[in-house]
Amino acid sequence: MFRYFTAGESHGPELTGIAEGIPAGLPLTEEFIEEHLVRRQQGYGRGGRMAFEKDRAEIRSGVRFGLTTGAPISLSMINRAYEKDDSNWPKVMAKDGERGDVERITLPRPGHADLVGVQKYGFDDIRPVIERSSARETAMRVACCSVARRFLQELGIRIGGHVIQIGSVGYGSWEEVRSAADTIAESSEGAENVWRTADKSDVRCLDGTLSEQMREEIKKRRKEGTSLGGIYEILVTGVPAGLGSYVHWDRKLDGLLAQAIMGTQAMKGIEIGLGFESGRRQGHDVHDEIAYADHHFTRKTNRLGGLEGGVTTGMPLIIRGVMKPIPTMIKPLKTADIDTKEELDTRYERSDVCALPRAVVVAESVIAPVIANAILEKFGGDSMDEIKDRYPSR
Amino acid sequence: MFRYFTAGESHGPELTGIAEGIPAGLPLTEEFIEEHLVRRQQGYGRGGRMAFEKDRAEIRSGVRFGLTTGAPISLSMINRAYEKDDSNWPKVMAKDGERGDVERITLPRPGHADLVGVQKYGFDDIRPVIERSSARETAMRVACCSVARRFLQELGIRIGGHVIQIGSVGYGSWEEVRSAADTIAESSEGAENVWRTADKSDVRCLDGTLSEQMREEIKKRRKEGTSLGGIYEILVTGVPAGLGSYVHWDRKLDGLLAQAIMGTQAMKGIEIGLGFESGRRQGHDVHDEIAYADHHFTRKTNRLGGLEGGVTTGMPLIIRGVMKPIPTMIKPLKTADIDTKEELDTRYERSDVCALPRAVVVAESVIAPVIANAILEKFGGDSMDEIKDRYPSR
Amino acid sequence: MFRYFTAGESHGPELTGIAEGIPAGLPLTEEFIEEHLVRRQQGYGRGGRMAFEKDRAEIRSGVRFGLTTGAPISLSMINRAYEKDDSNWPKVMAKDGERGDVERITLPRPGHADLVGVQKYGFDDIRPVIERSSARETAMRVACCSVARRFLQELGIRIGGHVIQIGSVGYGSWEEVRSAADTIAESSEGAENVWRTADKSDVRCLDGTLSEQMREEIKKRRKEGTSLGGIYEILVTGVPAGLGSYVHWDRKLDGLLAQAIMGTQAMKGIEIGLGFESGRRQGHDVHDEIAYADHHFTRKTNRLGGLEGGVTTGMPLIIRGVMKPIPTMIKPLKTADIDTKEELDTRYERSDVCALPRAVVVAESVIAPVIANAILEKFGGDSMDEIKDRYPSR
Amino acid sequence: MFRYFTAGESHGPELTGIAEGIPAGLPLTEEFIEEHLVRRQQGYGRGGRMAFEKDRAEIRSGVRFGLTTGAPISLSMINRAYEKDDSNWPKVMAKDGERGDVERITLPRPGHADLVGVQKYGFDDIRPVIERSSARETAMRVACCSVARRFLQELGIRIGGHVIQIGSVGYGSWEEVRSAADTIAESSEGAENVWRTADKSDVRCLDGTLSEQMREEIKKRRKEGTSLGGIYEILVTGVPAGLGSYVHWDRKLDGLLAQAIMGTQAMKGIEIGLGFESGRRQGHDVHDEIAYADHHFTRKTNRLGGLEGGVTTGMPLIIRGVMKPIPTMIKPLKTADIDTKEELDTRYERSDVCALPRAVVVAESVIAPVIANAILEKFGGDSMDEIKDRYPSR
Repeated sequence: MFRYFTAGESHGPELTGIAEGIPAGLPLTEEFIEEHLVRRQQGYGRGGRMAFEKDRAEIRSGVRFGLTTGAPISLSMINRAYEKDDSNWPKVMAKDGERGDVERITLPRPGHADLVGVQKYGFDDIRPVIERSSARETAMRVACCSVARRFLQELGIRIGGHVIQIGSVGYGSWEEVRSAADTIAESSEGAENVWRTADKSDVRCLDGTLSEQMREEIKKRRKEGTSLGGIYEILVTGVPAGLGSYVHWDRKLDGLLAQAIMGTQAMKGIEIGLGFESGRRQGHDVHDEIAYADHHFTRKTNRLGGLEGGVTTGMPLIIRGVMKPIPTMIKPLKTADIDTKEELDTRYERSDVCALPRAVVVAESVIAPVIANAILEKFGGDSMDEIKDRYPSR
Repeated sequence: MFRYFTAGESHGPELTGIAEGIPAGLPLTEEFIEEHLVRRQQGYGRGGRMAFEKDRAEIRSGVRFGLTTGAPISLSMINRAYEKDDSNWPKVMAKDGERGDVERITLPRPGHADLVGVQKYGFDDIRPVIERSSARETAMRVACCSVARRFLQELGIRIGGHVIQIGSVGYGSWEEVRSAADTIAESSEGAENVWRTADKSDVRCLDGTLSEQMREEIKKRRKEGTSLGGIYEILVTGVPAGLGSYVHWDRKLDGLLAQAIMGTQAMKGIEIGLGFESGRRQGHDVHDEIAYADHHFTRKTNRLGGLEGGVTTGMPLIIRGVMKPIPTMIKPLKTADIDTKEELDTRYERSDVCALPRAVVVAESVIAPVIANAILEKFGGDSMDEIKDRYPSR
Repeated sequence: MFRYFTAGESHGPELTGIAEGIPAGLPLTEEFIEEHLVRRQQGYGRGGRMAFEKDRAEIRSGVRFGLTTGAPISLSMINRAYEKDDSNWPKVMAKDGERGDVERITLPRPGHADLVGVQKYGFDDIRPVIERSSARETAMRVACCSVARRFLQELGIRIGGHVIQIGSVGYGSWEEVRSAADTIAESSEGAENVWRTADKSDVRCLDGTLSEQMREEIKKRRKEGTSLGGIYEILVTGVPAGLGSYVHWDRKLDGLLAQAIMGTQAMKGIEIGLGFESGRRQGHDVHDEIAYADHHFTRKTNRLGGLEGGVTTGMPLIIRGVMKPIPTMIKPLKTADIDTKEELDTRYERSDVCALPRAVVVAESVIAPVIANAILEKFGGDSMDEIKDRYPSR
Repeated sequence: MFRYFTAGESHGPELTGIAEGIPAGLPLTEEFIEEHLVRRQQGYGRGGRMAFEKDRAEIRSGVRFGLTTGAPISLSMINRAYEKDDSNWPKVMAKDGERGDVERITLPRPGHADLVGVQKYGFDDIRPVIERSSARETAMRVACCSVARRFLQELGIRIGGHVIQIGSVGYGSWEEVRSAADTIAESSEGAENVWRTADKSDVRCLDGTLSEQMREEIKKRRKEGTSLGGIYEILVTGVPAGLGSYVHWDRKLDGLLAQAIMGTQAMKGIEIGLGFESGRRQGHDVHDEIAYADHHFTRKTNRLGGLEGGVTTGMPLIIRGVMKPIPTMIKPLKTADIDTKEELDTRYERSDVCALPRAVVVAESVIAPVIANAILEKFGGDSMDEIKDRYPSR
């Protein structure tokens, strides 16, 4: 079973990850991981901060001569800003010694974990909460999950996401999204073609006109000093039928996918296929008729998003998630100081306006281990040779 | 940690459950469980089948003189129809012997696990898939989870759900739902008052006019030979701040709640608070300002649904789920026989039109263990006395 | 992954078990399970209690026409004594109502969980501790684990145990045990031949002379009013090389086997192969030289008991466990009342003198799920056909 | 719940660990961890290799101003030899590129994971097996577990081990060990006094005469070109009654302790209290009578090693483990080449003769997370303040 831990603070010396349980013999390079790390850094809607240094995770164990060895894979992302910038992070984030004149942060930002973190852990300083709850952690999450993603790629399973809504701008219906995305996903590269195409837009939207409108929406909200979230869709192609199980609730693949998505910073909802729309339609506009063609059972539509009874149908998975607007905003919100309890405005902080295009990459990543584990459960195996030998050709 | 297993087939002799990890000293009766089992059986939109016998789970272990003992609690629901009706279930579902003249089912119903189950497990008969993937299993799920629900009740945590959308009929906005539900949940009984009030409507909707429209919608769709799903909302009141954690993705309470909901039959989406709507709004219309009053931090609104950073804020949890329409419908769908591969219409079967009102009870139930475990993680404890002693009074 | 829960009290109405995660298509009958349940009831050293009714577990779900369906398997053992004897168990163990005149037990028996149970759960009565900590629970454990054992059998993996020490009587050396057991295990039935042979002795010892001496030892200790434990050895034949892993501590098969054995009532130690003796020998008398013959790597000896680096070598597993003497004894021990704190003698209770021969069956059983899971991890699979297709022929 | 992963190869650039689940507010320094890392490096019986550089784990996250923050703690041990020695490890262990002229290792060493590793993962080179299965990994295990050990220390729970047998030299009886160790453990520092005292002997034996004999035994075996293992005992003092549970097999503390010990390199057995000796004695020489004194229940002896029914009694835990002799030995063993299948002698390699004194430190460490988790289960809590507040004073 693929398992992973991430560690590290936003402004600490390093983000660290350990990914355990990947079979031996999987080709894995830092370049593969880097591609998704860099994608995660890109997208319209970022604040005016410095040009970013590219994230890169160094493989520190578990890979030899380009192949995994079955051993745990450790990944390290050194935070270069930690030492070199002028914010004095080594002092602020010192692992030992006294606090000295390092300031406490006492004004919790609504929408972040600031207040709940302090309440839970009994801190008198919000700093440690900010450092760990920050979306910076998703960089290491992407790195760890990319190992699972590489595993899936080897079996022809591809994952690709695109943006379908930012604030008030988005597709008009399920069918509109299908016609924008499905043909692209039917290429020989499957859903990889979806992200490659979407990545051509800096808002990661497949539709040129909507992309332009989304950028306008972001510009407008930036001027107003507020922020935006939005909705993305992830497609997974090449998934064999029969992953997951209906026999026990905790083996249903929908549940495991939902946990992965909802266990990600800022996500407030997930749906499979038609999702919430399926509650508004009558049955004949929801269920997918079964057909048999080319020696395979198939579905005439894919409104259930590739899952029936918690089990994959062999159709592409279609998963949507929603990200709330970034809570850090120019125009302040009311809050209360944890020391004085005084009601105050949140402090001015530079921030991005919309993180959604980048969140797509995180969402693509976090579902990879779920699918990889469903594969390992059905096909077992300690090495890629062993698995491929058993794996159905398509 | 509260853990549970369910077992049993829809037309087998018994549904069985084991719930492990509940502290000693919790008052628990079959009546408490029965109340929710019976609620699960009630709701407008059922088919014309016989008057149902009331479900009742018998406690077979783990409780003595009305109090839990810390030992696993086994629950048994004997299927009375198994023996007495004329469908010959003891023969059809025989655990041993030969199949004989028991017919195989070879026509998979779209939207059910029928086809994927056969593909996964290599069956030549859909019967075993139908038997285990059926929503009948949720009766035992409700029974097991009611144990956790009783635990939460003892600590003043109440769970209550109501229907907000059936097909095309539903509330117009988040704010409309808030004004229908929040006052009710602010009573001294908290969210228990929500379900008690909703239960007065046979579609479990708090609004009388909408209830009427929902019934009309169901009637109309019944006539058309199709079916409906819908959307429900679950409120949880009395939840202390600080449950769950932002420090690691698999400890975020949103993710665990999402798995519980999405691990339930027919659910295609879940959202917390504003959910998908939060992707359409700008930040100031999403985040909840922090205030301090009466010696407590609070939020001026609760649009994030009681969770920030995967941790409870102390505000009520607001969780919504969507159920797809029932796949079994009078008007047929196309499908293909697993033997002959021939394309055929689904067979006529009597079925309910809308299961949503009953699904509310299941959803209320399945989240109880998640919250109970978050409580046990923070407060520990082997007995109710020990836990109550540590538990914050509100 | 095979998982199981047991529930039920020693004098409650029923022992219940749920076994989840077994592939579909496994032949499984109540007779197979019963064979091991009855074996568990037999053995020299039982007290003079009534002739025992044979234990039998009824399969209540998960099996149809003699084959598993992939669904959870529930097992039920009705406690016939509950209703019919004169001890008034329905009143003593009532799940509801008041205690009334049912006596509290306040004198903890040393060596049982009595005192710690009361301390942990805050009881004023030892009864609930006795009821759940009793070795009666192992009946259901045997039943659940027999499902995994049946799975292993289908793949040619056999488990068989025998007694090697009771009190002061036992084999003189590792080599003596090897010459008593290994030839027997090399039959075509593998380790099944070990238990079948050992079962001919009512102390489950393969050696006739030792068997006689063990009976004498038991008789002698019975007269003295004391009790005995002892040491058993379990062999597992037909295990393929490569189960378990050295890559992470919690995947080492030795650790998982050890947990299963030590998670069983009254066990105080476990060793693999030479075990503790390996600490007393020099290296050349411990390690097993590697050879290659008949197209297979093999070992010239098997002193490491079939495991190197936490991974199976393909040689038989040899696992030993020790059971402490039964704590309930005619000759009293000192104890202290939980109410009065007064120091008193334990009360006279009829009891067995030596439970070891029966514990062998429990130990054989509890390791089956561990090995089954290692198989499932390496070979995956949802049905027996799928697994057998991949499984190496030997 | 405390969880941890280790990663890293013996001759790779770094060993990495992540420890997740430790409460906030625990004082933790690199010095505390280093003390045990250095202890792990020390002991009579090492080979003639170079003077070792001291191991030191750097804390890379999860600690600020000397206190844990609740966030995952990452630990890094840079392998200085990787870059600087002349073995060309960066080339041999290269994560990418081609193998080039790096030699394959094809001669498996009996007693190591060499052969099984190759069989499991399908390698044509034993190098990756050696690198991960090596006991070098226990350095990071000690580092991770020291975090849990620090947590226990804060609650007055101390762990200390000592050697009781090396080859043919050891204590004559349980009682002899008790009189050597128990008084030492009864000091105010509890079992910490055990390791501090044992550490004065370079074989970590509390008895001066035995220490001398053990050194002689090691010298003798070194001359013979063979190796030794042995038996150690770990004491844990300050453990409250009521940790673990008898209610379900996988909650019994004995099982969890056994897995931790047996999941450690080279361990072939574990016992609690009298362990295997309890199978040779009659009941009255095994069970511990209960007494009440000083407002506490206690035991007159501690032959069951602090556990009854899988639950702590409040007496010290007494756990013994056995380590097999080091498999790498001067005098060769027969083996067979994985390429040619030719039977050959193992190659000459410099090696230690006896690793037992160092293994004691590993064993002390690996049980710490088990006990920490039992504490967290009973007392819950997110911060040390919260936990201490609930924790019983003694």
